Amino acid sequence: MTEKIGLSPGTAVYTGYIEEKEPDITIVRYDAANIEVGDYRSLDEVQRICSGLDDTTKSWIHIEPISDSGTIARLSDFFGLHSLVVEDILSVNHRPKIEEYDEYSFIIIKYAQYEEGELIFYQIALVLKEKQIISFADKSPNKFDMVNKRLEKADSRIRKGDSEYLFLALIDYVIDHYFLVLESISEEIEELEEEILYNPTKESIEHVHHLKRNLMNLKKSIWPMREVINTLLQSDRIKQEYHIYYRDVYDHVIDIIDIIEGYRDTISGFLDIYLSTLSNRMNEIMKTLSIIATIFIPLSFLTGYFGMNFKYETILESQSAYMWSNILMISIPVALLIYFKLRKWF
Amino acid sequence: MTEKIGLSPGTAVYTGYIEEKEPDITIVRYDAANIEVGDYRSLDEVQRICSGLDDTTKSWIHIEPISDSGTIARLSDFFGLHSLVVEDILSVNHRPKIEEYDEYSFIIIKYAQYEEGELIFYQIALVLKEKQIISFADKSPNKFDMVNKRLEKADSRIRKGDSEYLFLALIDYVIDHYFLVLESISEEIEELEEEILYNPTKESIEHVHHLKRNLMNLKKSIWPMREVINTLLQSDRIKQEYHIYYRDVYDHVIDIIDIIEGYRDTISGFLDIYLSTLSNRMNEIMKTLSIIATIFIPLSFLTGYFGMNFKYETILESQSAYMWSNILMISIPVALLIYFKLRKWF
Amino acid sequence: MTEKIGLSPGTAVYTGYIEEKEPDITIVRYDAANIEVGDYRSLDEVQRICSGLDDTTKSWIHIEPISDSGTIARLSDFFGLHSLVVEDILSVNHRPKIEEYDEYSFIIIKYAQYEEGELIFYQIALVLKEKQIISFADKSPNKFDMVNKRLEKADSRIRKGDSEYLFLALIDYVIDHYFLVLESISEEIEELEEEILYNPTKESIEHVHHLKRNLMNLKKSIWPMREVINTLLQSDRIKQEYHIYYRDVYDHVIDIIDIIEGYRDTISGFLDIYLSTLSNRMNEIMKTLSIIATIFIPLSFLTGYFGMNFKYETILESQSAYMWSNILMISIPVALLIYFKLRKWF
Amino acid sequence: MTEKIGLSPGTAVYTGYIEEKEPDITIVRYDAANIEVGDYRSLDEVQRICSGLDDTTKSWIHIEPISDSGTIARLSDFFGLHSLVVEDILSVNHRPKIEEYDEYSFIIIKYAQYEEGELIFYQIALVLKEKQIISFADKSPNKFDMVNKRLEKADSRIRKGDSEYLFLALIDYVIDHYFLVLESISEEIEELEEEILYNPTKESIEHVHHLKRNLMNLKKSIWPMREVINTLLQSDRIKQEYHIYYRDVYDHVIDIIDIIEGYRDTISGFLDIYLSTLSNRMNEIMKTLSIIATIFIPLSFLTGYFGMNFKYETILESQSAYMWSNILMISIPVALLIYFKLRKWF
Amino acid sequence: MTEKIGLSPGTAVYTGYIEEKEPDITIVRYDAANIEVGDYRSLDEVQRICSGLDDTTKSWIHIEPISDSGTIARLSDFFGLHSLVVEDILSVNHRPKIEEYDEYSFIIIKYAQYEEGELIFYQIALVLKEKQIISFADKSPNKFDMVNKRLEKADSRIRKGDSEYLFLALIDYVIDHYFLVLESISEEIEELEEEILYNPTKESIEHVHHLKRNLMNLKKSIWPMREVINTLLQSDRIKQEYHIYYRDVYDHVIDIIDIIEGYRDTISGFLDIYLSTLSNRMNEIMKTLSIIATIFIPLSFLTGYFGMNFKYETILESQSAYMWSNILMISIPVALLIYFKLRKWF
Repeated sequence: MTEKIGLSPGTAVYTGYIEEKEPDITIVRYDAANIEVGDYRSLDEVQRICSGLDDTTKSWIHIEPISDSGTIARLSDFFGLHSLVVEDILSVNHRPKIEEYDEYSFIIIKYAQYEEGELIFYQIALVLKEKQIISFADKSPNKFDMVNKRLEKADSRIRKGDSEYLFLALIDYVIDHYFLVLESISEEIEELEEEILYNPTKESIEHVHHLKRNLMNLKKSIWPMREVINTLLQSDRIKQEYHIYYRDVYDHVIDIIDIIEGYRDTISGFLDIYLSTLSNRMNEIMKTLSIIATIFIPLSFLTGYFGMNFKYETILESQSAYMWSNILMISIPVALLIYFKLRKWF
Repeated sequence: MTEKIGLSPGTAVYTGYIEEKEPDITIVRYDAANIEVGDYRSLDEVQRICSGLDDTTKSWIHIEPISDSGTIARLSDFFGLHSLVVEDILSVNHRPKIEEYDEYSFIIIKYAQYEEGELIFYQIALVLKEKQIISFADKSPNKFDMVNKRLEKADSRIRKGDSEYLFLALIDYVIDHYFLVLESISEEIEELEEEILYNPTKESIEHVHHLKRNLMNLKKSIWPMREVINTLLQSDRIKQEYHIYYRDVYDHVIDIIDIIEGYRDTISGFLDIYLSTLSNRMNEIMKTLSIIATIFIPLSFLTGYFGMNFKYETILESQSAYMWSNILMISIPVALLIYFKLRKWF
Repeated sequence: MTEKIGLSPGTAVYTGYIEEKEPDITIVRYDAANIEVGDYRSLDEVQRICSGLDDTTKSWIHIEPISDSGTIARLSDFFGLHSLVVEDILSVNHRPKIEEYDEYSFIIIKYAQYEEGELIFYQIALVLKEKQIISFADKSPNKFDMVNKRLEKADSRIRKGDSEYLFLALIDYVIDHYFLVLESISEEIEELEEEILYNPTKESIEHVHHLKRNLMNLKKSIWPMREVINTLLQSDRIKQEYHIYYRDVYDHVIDIIDIIEGYRDTISGFLDIYLSTLSNRMNEIMKTLSIIATIFIPLSFLTGYFGMNFKYETILESQSAYMWSNILMISIPVALLIYFKLRKWF
Repeated sequence: MTEKIGLSPGTAVYTGYIEEKEPDITIVRYDAANIEVGDYRSLDEVQRICSGLDDTTKSWIHIEPISDSGTIARLSDFFGLHSLVVEDILSVNHRPKIEEYDEYSFIIIKYAQYEEGELIFYQIALVLKEKQIISFADKSPNKFDMVNKRLEKADSRIRKGDSEYLFLALIDYVIDHYFLVLESISEEIEELEEEILYNPTKESIEHVHHLKRNLMNLKKSIWPMREVINTLLQSDRIKQEYHIYYRDVYDHVIDIIDIIEGYRDTISGFLDIYLSTLSNRMNEIMKTLSIIATIFIPLSFLTGYFGMNFKYETILESQSAYMWSNILMISIPVALLIYFKLRKWF
Repeated sequence: MTEKIGLSPGTAVYTGYIEEKEPDITIVRYDAANIEVGDYRSLDEVQRICSGLDDTTKSWIHIEPISDSGTIARLSDFFGLHSLVVEDILSVNHRPKIEEYDEYSFIIIKYAQYEEGELIFYQIALVLKEKQIISFADKSPNKFDMVNKRLEKADSRIRKGDSEYLFLALIDYVIDHYFLVLESISEEIEELEEEILYNPTKESIEHVHHLKRNLMNLKKSIWPMREVINTLLQSDRIKQEYHIYYRDVYDHVIDIIDIIEGYRDTISGFLDIYLSTLSNRMNEIMKTLSIIATIFIPLSFLTGYFGMNFKYETILESQSAYMWSNILMISIPVALLIYFKLRKWF
């Protein structure tokens, strides 16, 4: 964000971490009967194809990646997007949000990926027009392959449906990926629990800390989706017949948030278990030390006592003294051990 | 959920853990005067019976278990349920919810069972139509035996009442089972408290953790019922005369949530007690160790001192030295013990 | 609650702990000028008296205890109460609530009693009709003696006022008893604070735990009263002129909740104090032990050193060695003590 | 509160701690041009003066203290206040509140005083009528001296303004005193922080506890002022032109609450610092003890070993043994110290 | 605030820490085509220039610093600002807020600066009139240099736009500076995390405490901006076409609050890590001490035993005793080490 301070709002600067690269542009033109899919690289081709669209054909244009801000800005311009929208597409650290314009609805959504304990978010921007969907993704789940497969089936609901239905399918696909992430995290939590209960190390607590932060980020990226979908439902852009599908996605969002909250609760408890395990272990160590010390310290005193060199220390010269001292040295630890046993020290 | 990513919404996949099995279908046809109960297995029979229903007869169809997704989907189709509803019936990890359709109301509710410390939830889906109730259960409390018994009494309120009243009776029955679960948990909490106060072990803290999680899950499965019943009350489907009964169930839900919250509070306190018990015990161990060490360490020094082998160490040759050393070795521990007593160390 | 699962809603079962006993029925008939108080036991007498009431006489019927569910059910029937109301009267573990019926308002309120550290709640059910109040109590504060005394004064506001005013007086009386309970708890908290600051034992933490739970229960029993009174104020049953008195009671409820919250905060702090006191004490013990050990361990080494039996250990044969060893053994502890003093260990 | 249980609402009983004393009654009669200030003691004089007021003269009557409940009740009666208002004036443990009557607005506000770590609240009751303000104070900040001084200036805004403006000035004056209290507390917090960071004692934690409670009470006494002022703004009694001044006071209240919350946060952190300081100190003590013990215990073993009295222990008879033993006894501690240094134990 | 108690509201007193100094007054007069920037010091010049403004010219007057309350008051008077507004401009510890007057909108906003761990806020007051903006700053980010640069470009949006757009640019500039502060804090947090995980000292916990307080202050200074911008959007003063830009700034505010919350969560976890690291270290120290003590204490007993001086202690005279004692003294520590290894003590 730093480099943007003082710039006029709406300045298009890419803020992500993917190296600059010309975007792949996939254009899907379809109706219930026909479908045509093509990959393009130049703006001219896109312009040519888009201007050739007739009134009945629906289209979906997918652009990925978006690291080349110049091209993205020109494409957005061609599609008639507001300069603030272009800025939002390119600054990839936005929270999910929705903005309603006269000609189109614009939403930002986060695609979450979890690999080797690292949680990465890719921002996906979706534009919904009357008969057209435009999607900008820093990275998308396999370029929405599953949605593509469903599109290929002629006469499927997605082919016959309006753009709103495809729009929903894209959102649904991204959100369903959260369940995958949560599954990985769930496994990690189970391992961590095992570890903390039976073999806690210093690293465990770092792990707890790390997981907590991941869950926090996950929640931050899904939480605003509630509002996004709600706003969509209240807008006029979505026909009544699709409301039920949007509500279904809404339910998934709520489920995800619920699961995250549950995990957070579970993890919070881990610290308590960890600390009490440490305390327990400390107690045990101290107990052992105490028992050994308590038994041997008096004995050492006795040996010291009988090792004194007084010239007139007659006790050492008594014949039975040695025997009695041995008896004493056996009975003291036995007595103490019995005493400890009774006080339930071990 | 994983296997469902990318599928079109409304795909019917069973997500529970009960092995695939053809459902038992119980059909109850009743009015104030007559009742007929039958068990069926084939869709054809169900179709035949349902199409034979006249206008005055109320019916309740109970289907359990729902692990055979194909049959369930066909049955739901026959009853005219929306494909999203079928999906909801089969994915058994939903939170309780209500959905209003033109022809029917659809609710999901959780039946909680607590056995040997394990809390299991079975999802029950209820459909309320004008004169018909359809219930899909992964597992229900003895197939609603108590409700059945009440149904068998001719001229009882449940027989004379509309479908809404039977619908309520089913909900009420499931919710009342929560009190049973809470009773078991309450007993466990009492035992746990005893244990933590008087004999805490490492397992106690795991137990606390386990109970906390169970209560959290319990709350998650009952909390949304508030909204479910509220929505039912605001809908037109429930006649005014039954509102008071629904409000009564609502009160029970609130009571259950209250009790759960109380238990959670109580359990939260257990950790504090546990840690302070550990600290206390540690203090006691250290005190004992300190007292013994403090008494014997100086004595050992003395015996060491009198055990030195200096050739010109005249003190050892004095006749009274031995006596005085003994007096010293008795008076030091006595003095220290008095000192400790005064400082209230034990 | 257990035994009620599956029963039809509205089944009258007593769930309290008072042994079954025929209720005492006190009937007060009064207007500004006259008052008549009578105690009855049989339903017939009640019926006879109630049917003899003319239009200008106000009446208050108090029934206590309610452990005999049969009689209570018959009485309620006679007074025209709904079966769900009867159920509520008899299941004495309800949270306070209000229910509005066409003919009457029904509220449940908790009378709190605190004796020897035990907090007990008795449920009181009040029914407000046009000219009649019916109160069912498991146990009431001395059968509302103070209200009775005020009733005995002719031309007092309570005698001249409508039933709503007496109704208010009963609620007010029960709620004001909370202040008594809070006073006892306040004293206990002060004692506990003293104890935890200057002489904490293992029992202190149990005491904290116990108090916390009592306060939680107290709050749960008064919190819903806010809504109860608010609903009363919004209903038409209470004439405008009495609103100010109901608001005054509302203020008392808020005050009670405030005080409870304050106590909870205070008690939460106790645990911190307790743990830090334990830590402090541990530190002190360890300090003492460390100082003694640190002083005597080197000394013991020295005596050991000079107690070795080497044949060619000429140092022991030197004449001044004994003197020097003594000097050494005095200077080492002195030096260490000075060092500790400088590092402020004691 | 105890003694009031069962009394009819509106009974006037003084619940404060100031000894019974006839109130001083100050009457200020003023308009833009003239001002007349007088002190009175008898109700008769007050009646005489108040009845002599003409239509254009504004008046302010200040009554302090209010421990003589009889006189206060008579005065309130004279001013036409409702019996519940009188009760509120006299029970000085109310939370701030506002009550709107047809003839007047009545508010309760708390004047906070902080002296030597003790936080005391005095209740001030203000009555706003058309052209008259009546203030009842258990104790006020120097009897509102600063407001008086502003009143003395002819043609000042306060003299020209309506009663609402003087009313506001009184409220403002009381609320601004909270900043003084917060300043004292702020200084105390800074001292406490210093103490806890560099020299924590057992008293520190009591101090933290004490401050927390003071802040909690402070918040409880200012928090309801938000609602009081909001209600005033929504009522018709305050002319539009004064709204901006009331909003200004509202802002001050919000500022005070903000500051209190900040202080509470800061103080909460103190406990963590305290406990970690204790832990740190413990660690240091144990480290020192461990190092000394670890060095000398093996040495003591050696001296013991060489001090054994075996007849056939030839090692003691070797000529070089003494030298070697000394070398051993020097190298062992040196080796251990190097080892500890490498493990960064000190 | 102290010195202001009892003063009439609206008294202009400067409460900041910058020494009294005549303000620099920068006046920018511009339209799409022309721009004129001048620095002035005397009120007369300002008056002369402002009265010379024609209807089409927009102007921005920036005044910094504001420590000379007399001049500021006179300037404000000249611009027709309410006395309460002047008071707010000068008391620089206000929380951000907005106030709507008939002629102008007045907002307070905080400019945050973070230098060497110290977070400083400077208050900036902005007044938006029809064609004029007046800004009062205790200190501004380089006197809004970046905004000035954008202003210098002829035909830029900021030059062509209405005053609302420049107003927005000023707000945007101040708010974007928060990202800079957050970046510095983020780096600090990362360093702190490293430190706490691998090398925690007593200072770390002070650092945590310090950072927490900074974040709390940061949040307090940005949180109310949500309301400020919301109110601006609901007012009529901002033309519809600029709403989208204001919403963009609103999004930034939300982003900042989100980031702050995330940091707070992260920092909260640090204390847990710190304490568990301390506990871990303690455990390790105790373990080492225990192992050494447990090994050598029995050995010392043995040497003591064999060092006793009994005259009739025949064991010492046996020829093989010495050898056996040596074997014993080797086997005991070996056995204990194996035992510890099996119990996984090290």
